[in-house]
Amino acid sequence: MPSIFTKIINGEIPCYKIAEDDDNFAFLDINPNSKGHTLCVPKKEVDKILDLDEASYMKLMAFSRKVGKAIEAAVDCKRVGMTVIGLEVPHVHVHLIPLHTMKNATFQHKESLEAKEFEAIASKIKQQLK
Amino acid sequence: MPSIFTKIINGEIPCYKIAEDDDNFAFLDINPNSKGHTLCVPKKEVDKILDLDEASYMKLMAFSRKVGKAIEAAVDCKRVGMTVIGLEVPHVHVHLIPLHTMKNATFQHKESLEAKEFEAIASKIKQQLK
Repeated sequence: MPSIFTKIINGEIPCYKIAEDDDNFAFLDINPNSKGHTLCVPKKEVDKILDLDEASYMKLMAFSRKVGKAIEAAVDCKRVGMTVIGLEVPHVHVHLIPLHTMKNATFQHKESLEAKEFEAIASKIKQQLK
Repeated sequence: MPSIFTKIINGEIPCYKIAEDDDNFAFLDINPNSKGHTLCVPKKEVDKILDLDEASYMKLMAFSRKVGKAIEAAVDCKRVGMTVIGLEVPHVHVHLIPLHTMKNATFQHKESLEAKEFEAIASKIKQQLK
């Protein structure tokens, strides 16, 4: 069965899309640690990041850097953190998280946003990628 | 003033070293989230990961992948997580963390290890890098 991320990439589940290239896809986390929290996912469905072949891993990391720099330019924060955990969804994903305090990095505090706010944030980040 | 990581890389502060190449250095975190928690640090002293030039960033990520695979082979865990935060030490570092549960990824639970245990873990990981 395809993962929830594959369904998002295929458009079967809606998302606030940020970016896409041949190999990777980025969209806003709908249960964000902070405003602008984004997930970068390889289209290839692999569970663990260290099981990605080296070329796919390097492409994902280059893609995450580009998206991360756009987030850092678009969203007020001290810096953008990067985290890969993967204990819940068995499809590699890099969390890009605007950090204000350590609280934003611990996955225990969540922000609640309206659809309009998600749309505005996605639009600001995409503007930086143009 | 050089960062604490530069002092470790230069041998001014001791560490449980895991690996080193021309550009990057890896050693055990002495305040680990779990046994085997390792830091990968570029020798170039830059504060934020997204401020590393693309080539240095890609080399750090390739290096972290190699060290991460060795940790995954050497240390009992479900998978190895990767995290970049950087709110405390202003010198880029990638945390490679053996994950058993989400607790190991939140930076709120810490393991206390004896010097002998650190040495044994470093030795097992280095064995996997040979």
